[in-house]
Amino acid sequence: MTDTPLDALTLDDLRRRTSVKWRAYPPDVLPLFVAEMDTPAAPFVVAAVTRALELGDTGYDIGTAYAEALAPFAVRRWGWEPDVATSRTLPDVMIAVTEVLRVLTAPGDAVVVTPPVYPPFYAFPRNEGRQVVEAPLTPDGRLDLGTLEEAFSRATGAAEHGGGPGSGRRAVLLLCSPHNPTGTVHTRGELEAVLALADRYGVRVVSDEVHAPFTFERVADGAPAFVPLLGVDGAERAIVVHSASKAFNLAGLRAAVALGGPGAAADLRRIPEEAGHAVNHLGVLAHAAAYAEGDDWLDALLAGVVRNRALVAGLIEARVPRARLLPGDATYLAWLDVRDALPAGVEAAAAHRCVLDGARVALGDGVPFGTGGAGRLRINLATSPAVLTEAVGRLGALFAA
Amino acid sequence: MTDTPLDALTLDDLRRRTSVKWRAYPPDVLPLFVAEMDTPAAPFVVAAVTRALELGDTGYDIGTAYAEALAPFAVRRWGWEPDVATSRTLPDVMIAVTEVLRVLTAPGDAVVVTPPVYPPFYAFPRNEGRQVVEAPLTPDGRLDLGTLEEAFSRATGAAEHGGGPGSGRRAVLLLCSPHNPTGTVHTRGELEAVLALADRYGVRVVSDEVHAPFTFERVADGAPAFVPLLGVDGAERAIVVHSASKAFNLAGLRAAVALGGPGAAADLRRIPEEAGHAVNHLGVLAHAAAYAEGDDWLDALLAGVVRNRALVAGLIEARVPRARLLPGDATYLAWLDVRDALPAGVEAAAAHRCVLDGARVALGDGVPFGTGGAGRLRINLATSPAVLTEAVGRLGALFAA
Ligand SMILES: Cc1ncc(COP(=O)(O)O)c(C=O)c1O
Ligand SMILES: Cc1ncc(COP(=O)(O)O)c(C=O)c1O
Repeated sequence: MTDTPLDALTLDDLRRRTSVKWRAYPPDVLPLFVAEMDTPAAPFVVAAVTRALELGDTGYDIGTAYAEALAPFAVRRWGWEPDVATSRTLPDVMIAVTEVLRVLTAPGDAVVVTPPVYPPFYAFPRNEGRQVVEAPLTPDGRLDLGTLEEAFSRATGAAEHGGGPGSGRRAVLLLCSPHNPTGTVHTRGELEAVLALADRYGVRVVSDEVHAPFTFERVADGAPAFVPLLGVDGAERAIVVHSASKAFNLAGLRAAVALGGPGAAADLRRIPEEAGHAVNHLGVLAHAAAYAEGDDWLDALLAGVVRNRALVAGLIEARVPRARLLPGDATYLAWLDVRDALPAGVEAAAAHRCVLDGARVALGDGVPFGTGGAGRLRINLATSPAVLTEAVGRLGALFAA
Repeated sequence: MTDTPLDALTLDDLRRRTSVKWRAYPPDVLPLFVAEMDTPAAPFVVAAVTRALELGDTGYDIGTAYAEALAPFAVRRWGWEPDVATSRTLPDVMIAVTEVLRVLTAPGDAVVVTPPVYPPFYAFPRNEGRQVVEAPLTPDGRLDLGTLEEAFSRATGAAEHGGGPGSGRRAVLLLCSPHNPTGTVHTRGELEAVLALADRYGVRVVSDEVHAPFTFERVADGAPAFVPLLGVDGAERAIVVHSASKAFNLAGLRAAVALGGPGAAADLRRIPEEAGHAVNHLGVLAHAAAYAEGDDWLDALLAGVVRNRALVAGLIEARVPRARLLPGDATYLAWLDVRDALPAGVEAAAAHRCVLDGARVALGDGVPFGTGGAGRLRINLATSPAVLTEAVGRLGALFAA
């Protein structure tokens, strides 16, 4: 299979790009760190942007076009119909998450995260004066009701107030679903249990679902593995954020949408109008085209990612046998535990630098992903088999040395 | 002269657009309110975006490309060389202004604005818990040292602390230069005096220079009328924000840059890295192309705006003689005082609604522009003479009735 969007470009093509992936390091470094894909721009995105430019349709965005475009896509792919009326179009995922946290909490309140997790989940809440409280995943990358209950207790101050659940400060659980970096797809049962627990502590749940389009089971057996939080029992007051930016490689043409259950509609309305001022109208048009016309392209892409994941798993086993790849069910990211593979004397926290200097491969550094991140590296699978083979080969040479 | 970018499109062309200007009101309303232009997309912008799509260069932005592109444009047009090293690329103008206010002030601190002024100058600081203190312009739209000194005194609490200048709280003066909505171009002398006064009170000065490319004198006599704040004596600690979004009609493909004098470099560095996460790489590429290749297109546009301003001035005099148009020297916005023209019984604050309902013309409502805004309407001149003639004709019919 060589007809996926991951097989179209050579390194020479890619090095003409001017984005972070291709400009953060010198050209001898193979870049597999940041969440950009080595795909050509999708034809329906090109067509939508071209049409907007022909019309000069480059002014300010208005209305709920984003959610209207997402809705039929969500129905087709996940059997979930978002409530367009609650939606707020926002400039990007992390701004949407931040605006939601700003209406649900006050400075000093806590945001619970489940590490290892996407580093901005720490930085953005902290920039708003919120405390980040960790509830680590299990070693297998699953949500852990034990660490969550402990975190909710600390986050709400329930313990120190001696009043048990519900007696304390406001707090939010910020989920990543599917989970970056482990590729975990939270099950319906897990989400129901987490919602019930959060409800007992008065903790509101916010879920970043930007990786939802990347659920591989869709390819393997046609079943939608991703469980949209707002379709789960007990999610009436939950808020989710969606964007086509990851699945269609539009980090450079940004937009996102926040949606809520019926009990969250008033909260979403409290996001100030000004937060929507920064929305890119061209981004909305591009993402809307992706949701409307992108199924086949996305299915081919998923097939390529599934293939690449198997390739990398095999290569790691053969070339870096002391490293352990977590078997994820979603995202184009793979989470590699290299603690037992590092050369003698290299600390776990220095794994990224060791690989960068020694193998000239830039992987995602696990450290900023929080607890459970040191000694782990994140590999971006959304590239060609040739690049992945070369990269793992270089790792193998370094770790064998 | 019919070869300006303002003469290329018909109302039928424009009504196919999906932006705020064309979708906020029903089709029988002539929209002249929001700051979008009725120009085709500029060819160099189309080329830059097309090339990025061909490369699939749609990932995350990196580096100081924005300021590097602005610098030669600023030298050519205003004789000012921005210091690229201090620059921070940010998602748009108002986010840039907000991030700058967040590093220079704390919640509760004051932001001084000079009304009537762009309404987000109120809303964005307030969303960050800052107080807005007004220092109104003179009736001619000039900066007023008297109201500024009084505002600085209140803003810093110098008066109440009895300690005179410099004894109080932190405060920022947020300038709009050139000024929206009056089209005022602040002179070097005015800016020097304001900087000196601000310095006496320990007030930091931030200038939103997004309208800088729209200075008409450039067309009339080749002289650069716009005075970049950072080129003025005493601006060592000042911060300015630039963007190509107004001059090249890229509100829907956003980006901006904050720049500082040497004494502000450390403050700019304190803007969190996360604020740059939302930058649109495609926006940066589009704006950079505009700065690099846009002079001729911009000069033709300015010629069209100058022509339209004279046309509207004449039409207002002939058709709505009791209204007064402020003669601005910059921007494509015109500020119209209709207090003496309103039908009997219509309050000044209802002027916008009166014109919308009675004439089916949507102008900018003066009320949210603060003190000096009631009974004023903002007209967007960046459209065809035919649209302007029709719009003023409708006003004339309403106000004559
Ligand atoms: C979980 C998660 N959320 C958000 C983002 C980024 O979204 P945005 O760039 O729209 O803020 C990413 C990017 O990789 C991500 O993995
Ligand atoms: C003075 C001023 N600042 C900022 C803006 C908007 O800039 P942005 O859309 O990049 O926030 C405008 C738009 O009209 C403006 O007039």
